Amino acid sequence: MADVLRYRKEDLINYTVQFMAKLGVPQKDAKIVGDVLITADLKGISSHGLIRLSSYYGNRLEKKYMDPQTPWKVIKETETTALIDGGNGVGQVVSYHAMNRCIQKAKKSKLAVVTVNHSNHYGIAAYYAMMALDHGMLGISLTNSQPLAAPTYGRTAVFGTNPLAVAAPSEKQYPFVLDMATSTVPIGKVKVYEKKGEKIPLGWGIDDDGNLTEDPKKVQSGGPGAVTPLGASDIMRSYKGYGLAIVVDILCGTLSGGPNLTDIGFPHEPRESNVSHFFMAIDIEAFRPLVDFKKQMDCLIQSLKDSPKAQGSDRIYVAGEKEFENEQVNRQKGVPLLANVVKDLENNGKKIGAPFTVKPIA
Amino acid sequence: MADVLRYRKEDLINYTVQFMAKLGVPQKDAKIVGDVLITADLKGISSHGLIRLSSYYGNRLEKKYMDPQTPWKVIKETETTALIDGGNGVGQVVSYHAMNRCIQKAKKSKLAVVTVNHSNHYGIAAYYAMMALDHGMLGISLTNSQPLAAPTYGRTAVFGTNPLAVAAPSEKQYPFVLDMATSTVPIGKVKVYEKKGEKIPLGWGIDDDGNLTEDPKKVQSGGPGAVTPLGASDIMRSYKGYGLAIVVDILCGTLSGGPNLTDIGFPHEPRESNVSHFFMAIDIEAFRPLVDFKKQMDCLIQSLKDSPKAQGSDRIYVAGEKEFENEQVNRQKGVPLLANVVKDLENNGKKIGAPFTVKPIA
Repeated sequence: MADVLRYRKEDLINYTVQFMAKLGVPQKDAKIVGDVLITADLKGISSHGLIRLSSYYGNRLEKKYMDPQTPWKVIKETETTALIDGGNGVGQVVSYHAMNRCIQKAKKSKLAVVTVNHSNHYGIAAYYAMMALDHGMLGISLTNSQPLAAPTYGRTAVFGTNPLAVAAPSEKQYPFVLDMATSTVPIGKVKVYEKKGEKIPLGWGIDDDGNLTEDPKKVQSGGPGAVTPLGASDIMRSYKGYGLAIVVDILCGTLSGGPNLTDIGFPHEPRESNVSHFFMAIDIEAFRPLVDFKKQMDCLIQSLKDSPKAQGSDRIYVAGEKEFENEQVNRQKGVPLLANVVKDLENNGKKIGAPFTVKPIA
Repeated sequence: MADVLRYRKEDLINYTVQFMAKLGVPQKDAKIVGDVLITADLKGISSHGLIRLSSYYGNRLEKKYMDPQTPWKVIKETETTALIDGGNGVGQVVSYHAMNRCIQKAKKSKLAVVTVNHSNHYGIAAYYAMMALDHGMLGISLTNSQPLAAPTYGRTAVFGTNPLAVAAPSEKQYPFVLDMATSTVPIGKVKVYEKKGEKIPLGWGIDDDGNLTEDPKKVQSGGPGAVTPLGASDIMRSYKGYGLAIVVDILCGTLSGGPNLTDIGFPHEPRESNVSHFFMAIDIEAFRPLVDFKKQMDCLIQSLKDSPKAQGSDRIYVAGEKEFENEQVNRQKGVPLLANVVKDLENNGKKIGAPFTVKPIA
């Protein structure tokens, strides 16, 4: 794997702080962004890692599409709920504070929901859901996003890949952490096939007529074409993935008063993205002793892993398991970055006056 | 449609009360069961309607697999939460009271979750989610169920079709009501194809080796074979449907202390089903004025309906819309029951001493 370089996490966090300082992001905020992005790299979700530091955050901050100060503020609040204006700031920053507030409320009230409007891309949804784990809580994190998926019987991108994440603590097993887009695949996956000059599996995307296509070129971000909702086709019940995507849009956009559907901006557009988030925490002790819950989670997870395997398969995975395994390895070996991501950091760091001079450890 | 007979709703409710009285179910409880079942018939979801009155409820009550008195009780309670023991009673009865309690709590606390363990089949999940609508709330209803679906890379039924329902109020449009199994299709759908001697679409079910099959006979309730989670295959991301099913099992079973996975009983087994439910209500006014939320829901729904159609399609549906349209028609014309459902009611009613003598109106 000569294509992968490995780094100390602290070094990469420090670099993120240096890089973002050049764009006006306060140190404590940049540390949050760094932690969210590098957690993705540690978990093997490189699509949501430092690859986005300059391409998304750097780019949008430089063009003043988002506010580096993240001037978030609480608009409305009760014992169990809060509505926060994200101030068109950095998504990770407001989301981190929103989920913390959610957890603090749930400590008192057993249950809390915090919604955030007027925000930007917040990284991996699971990061915030997992914040609940150490507090003996179930965590939920949702976000809407720019239109990329078409409804069942539609032919254009109308709603986002609108991911949802749910985290539940366990005792000896890895926690259960589901983090999934409600589309079959993200658009990035289609682009990987396009670059390789390969066909995509029939079911991932539709062409401009709304027909399933194997041609990745016909499935473009912002059209023509679109990705499919989970389920892929009407006969395989894509109305369910479509419905789930709209549930996410309602709980994020409609509940917080942020926009829905195509009123959400693309990252490249010279305007606010205006995405919204939804966070929830449930204190398990309100229902039963945490230790009992965790033990039962261990059994549930072990039962799934032990269940009979299909012909030719030797393993059944539980949500989050692969990513925790990656993380364990990568915490030992160092944060893996693809060589072209490092090159990107070097080029863009130089331009901005924050040269990427971090030494790899492997 | 000579195969369909139509009845007055009140007549069918009264009959449900007579029928269930013979099995020891109190009148006020039987009215709830009747309303849940007949609402399904009105909405065109006949699989969850009166077809189940004798085949499921009558059968299990007669064999003493469930308690007709539904001796539910609150085990643990806070301002925002409650854990209820369903007393192995009728699922609809405890669920109706649980969701009512949830709504009352949310009126005070803005947010509430009520879980129920030790229960039985509760009918359509949407019924309870929709109870929140008239109170200006978002409603959520989940239940786990007997094992019928296999995990990705598995080959036996390990978890239920574990449905989820989410309801959101609107102003002029029909409310948004998503009610979906987290499997691609329910087992009943496979059986319909088997009866017709037809192949099922490749993706709905697997055979005993874990391979996708077109043979409905290889996809049996309780095995061999199983239905697939939403997504159908690994390449179409069935791990997401599988993950969602486990989220439902965690929020219902693990959170309430009820069993998970294969510890849940089949309806035909001589033991308690021991399914668990999860109910949630969110008071919209905690976040923004209800009227604004509802108006934005109208726009969201209209935008989805107005979005460009695929070649050969003339309509895009919104979750719940078809069912509300059915209901509107059927409230005028009468509750539709298939002739063989009526025959079933007649035969079983006679056996039990509650003859079905209700006159159809069409």
